[in-house]
Amino acid sequence: MKKYDKLIKNAVGRVVPTIINGEGHIPFQGVGKYKPAGRKYGPKIASCADYPVDGNKTVESLKEALIKAGLKDGMTISTHHHFRNGDLIANQVFDIAHELSIKGLRWYPSASFPCQEHLIPYLEDGTINRIEGSMNGPLGRFASEGKMKGLGVLRSHGGRYQAVQDGEVQIDIAVIAAPTADPFGNANGVYGDAACGLLGFALADSQYADKVVVVTDHLVPFPAIPWQIHGNYVDYVVKVDKVGIPEKIISGTTKIAKSPDRLLIAELTARFCEKTGLIYDGFSYQAGAGGTALSIGNYFGDILRKNGWKARFIRAGSNKYAVEMLEEGLVDYILDGQTFDLDGVRSMRENPNHVNTSPFTSYNYHGKGNFASMIDVVVLGATEVDVNFNANVVTHSDGYLLHGIGGWQNCLFAKTTILPIPLFRDRIPVIRDEVTTLCGPGELIDVIVTERGIAINPLRQDLMEKTKNSGLPIKTIKELKEEAEAICGVPEKPKLSDEIIAVIKWVDGTVIDSVRKVE
Amino acid sequence: MKKYDKLIKNAVGRVVPTIINGEGHIPFQGVGKYKPAGRKYGPKIASCADYPVDGNKTVESLKEALIKAGLKDGMTISTHHHFRNGDLIANQVFDIAHELSIKGLRWYPSASFPCQEHLIPYLEDGTINRIEGSMNGPLGRFASEGKMKGLGVLRSHGGRYQAVQDGEVQIDIAVIAAPTADPFGNANGVYGDAACGLLGFALADSQYADKVVVVTDHLVPFPAIPWQIHGNYVDYVVKVDKVGIPEKIISGTTKIAKSPDRLLIAELTARFCEKTGLIYDGFSYQAGAGGTALSIGNYFGDILRKNGWKARFIRAGSNKYAVEMLEEGLVDYILDGQTFDLDGVRSMRENPNHVNTSPFTSYNYHGKGNFASMIDVVVLGATEVDVNFNANVVTHSDGYLLHGIGGWQNCLFAKTTILPIPLFRDRIPVIRDEVTTLCGPGELIDVIVTERGIAINPLRQDLMEKTKNSGLPIKTIKELKEEAEAICGVPEKPKLSDEIIAVIKWVDGTVIDSVRKVE
Repeated sequence: MKKYDKLIKNAVGRVVPTIINGEGHIPFQGVGKYKPAGRKYGPKIASCADYPVDGNKTVESLKEALIKAGLKDGMTISTHHHFRNGDLIANQVFDIAHELSIKGLRWYPSASFPCQEHLIPYLEDGTINRIEGSMNGPLGRFASEGKMKGLGVLRSHGGRYQAVQDGEVQIDIAVIAAPTADPFGNANGVYGDAACGLLGFALADSQYADKVVVVTDHLVPFPAIPWQIHGNYVDYVVKVDKVGIPEKIISGTTKIAKSPDRLLIAELTARFCEKTGLIYDGFSYQAGAGGTALSIGNYFGDILRKNGWKARFIRAGSNKYAVEMLEEGLVDYILDGQTFDLDGVRSMRENPNHVNTSPFTSYNYHGKGNFASMIDVVVLGATEVDVNFNANVVTHSDGYLLHGIGGWQNCLFAKTTILPIPLFRDRIPVIRDEVTTLCGPGELIDVIVTERGIAINPLRQDLMEKTKNSGLPIKTIKELKEEAEAICGVPEKPKLSDEIIAVIKWVDGTVIDSVRKVE
Repeated sequence: MKKYDKLIKNAVGRVVPTIINGEGHIPFQGVGKYKPAGRKYGPKIASCADYPVDGNKTVESLKEALIKAGLKDGMTISTHHHFRNGDLIANQVFDIAHELSIKGLRWYPSASFPCQEHLIPYLEDGTINRIEGSMNGPLGRFASEGKMKGLGVLRSHGGRYQAVQDGEVQIDIAVIAAPTADPFGNANGVYGDAACGLLGFALADSQYADKVVVVTDHLVPFPAIPWQIHGNYVDYVVKVDKVGIPEKIISGTTKIAKSPDRLLIAELTARFCEKTGLIYDGFSYQAGAGGTALSIGNYFGDILRKNGWKARFIRAGSNKYAVEMLEEGLVDYILDGQTFDLDGVRSMRENPNHVNTSPFTSYNYHGKGNFASMIDVVVLGATEVDVNFNANVVTHSDGYLLHGIGGWQNCLFAKTTILPIPLFRDRIPVIRDEVTTLCGPGELIDVIVTERGIAINPLRQDLMEKTKNSGLPIKTIKELKEEAEAICGVPEKPKLSDEIIAVIKWVDGTVIDSVRKVE
């Protein structure tokens, strides 16, 4: 099977394959242009007659569960990444597959992390044909070097739900590692040693996979409450000693920015939002877990406090700063997709206003609306932005595929999308004539905030208008680019081969760009 | 279109049609015998591009919503019955349909109540072709008299979920009346004047209907928390003055039994459970909302208290008695499918251990297990039981179809099913040679408790054994029947025509019995 075939230039001028790993895919047609015509995927109808009447679905081991689930060559196996770099289960799944001499698996993680570098030998020996999912770090590097047998397919969190819901990706076996579960398969992320807050990234897997295996190190008597994963979707439950390494599950890196440039960017972003009226009593926002984003959240808090306002909700990635705002009464709700620290986990466990969400509620573009487009302000990162506001979030300027998409593409649908980014990183300018990989179309990106000025997308005349005489350092994006180049010089283009090693999906399942092998 | 065709005798010897309202149906094949081969129904894939980006799906009126949803002749319209006899919305839906001269609708309520007697003219003039759902009271009487144009189809709560999930019933427009909702369509039953606790009976409708309309009298800003119904499934939101009459939503009839016979039955049931070891530390039970069932719950509480035991969960229909047990610490969890009083609503709102369930989690037989079969003891009513322990819950002994199935069939899968029933009602014996309508196969019914003795199904030799020398008044079911007939005489058979007016579905979608027109 060819990794890809039938190249075409899509609506943003990127050359993408229309045959990927032997299956047909649709090229990107423009934001909101592609309209799905089909029906949602219908998993096989089960019968209670085939499940234990006492509800006890436990089996002895993960190996036994995988064998009972019918593991065989060419299957699609999914895992989730709520344990981030502390996951212990995905590696075991493929150790077992390798031991059983299974070949050609498609691994469909919600994201992969450096802890899964362990799987590189299986990518080499053909146990795993390819990864379809974000590849953070070493696995991305491996793919970038053209070493993966199949073509990588990167999807946003919402795109991953969409692909499963629409039947584009049919999961044969979903393995859901859970901090707490009962023998029926009800599972949650709020209790247990490996508590990670929630399990929303595994929701689609539970609903649509042919066979669902829940693996836990904290088996409680039925019912495990809350049931973030419904046991009614689960086939087998496995008790293991340890599903994850707690200190690696909870990221220790969620610290407020300290570098003067980062703090300046954060402060400028907050001032911009204040001056333009984007912040108001009842507004909503989403910010990531990086230092700059955290600082922006803090500045937002200050503005709310000063005005006696309250945000209606924070869409999160939660951490202690968001939790403090909730507990201080600066926000009504945290609508949380993944918790980044123990304060987030505790809050989700204890506070009914800290609400468990999923890619279905928040991001799925093939739903009857989702939460992302209702958010007033979203603050995101980017590895590169071009002069047309197109942005890249997956490849570095040297062409290496080292980051996942996460919810990034989905969040672009917010009412105002702001990218607070440094003008250059390691003396390499971030604003380019053309991004290496186009992950987000410029029409959805409203504002770029750098330490040396703010560029507003000309499509947002309203924001242009509101910042006149504001004292804010408004510049054109070309001015920002020239400023960076005056300091660092014009950056070199990455040395890429023609060979495609992965594609980037848009939120509607169409192919927005290709990622090329690094020479 | 013929109402029904192609009669066949099914596995319990009942003559049932295999063509119903023009569509093919499978006759009952025995408990656990019919294995579904297909796939779950796949609703049309939606796109966010077709929904308001600000998440505001409100329209001016229910009429506008129904028109936008494409209401037309022959459609299937669903409603739920969480408001019980206080519902104000279902009638309005069909008033609008009538006003628009729509004909031949299939009404697919989760149950219908006397307050919907208002719809009889629409059943007569053809606005509504038929009701598929439980018919309590006047609508059942109307059907029993052969006046409904189409054939009635009665399903259990779990069977209703199964039918929708499996695509047997495709809902065109679901109308979900909600005590609280936001403009995106997130909805719950815990807040608002019409608070009814939860909205689980509308879950399948939200997930699978082509168009979903949420109607509320308490519209709150996004997000309505908790979202028992996900706005991501919702097309339109309508604000009205009043969705239900609170005092009729909450049943005032949940009072402990006072009649000596009922109390005796309750006490005997509890003693039976104690003597046979069915009650233990960590056990679970489900009892209905009738007076006898409530009294049994109280006796169970006494036994737990006396022994220093705790129940793991109560499956409910909750009311103040169950809530008191939860608050006293006699039970870890209430897993609730519908709240019967304000204490139930309050508890569900406030207590995270009072958990919102649905026919999907609790009852759907075409899932990977459900909760019903995990329950130690379930206590149910019946209108008739026969000497082979088969039971009837829908028709009276005069043949009139006056009751719904509710979760009754689903609950029969409990580890031990007990029917505490009076030996006769209005001097008509309850135990018969043959039930008028067979709703539950005798093999699933373990014990009959009457004021004059307890009959154990011979299939339960374990219970026979444990009650030897227990002092409990164990009799055969034939002995009980003879005792009743000695007092009341042999009951007359109901006067029924050959004409079928409705069918009873089994939990797996097969047809277990037919209901005949009353002469």
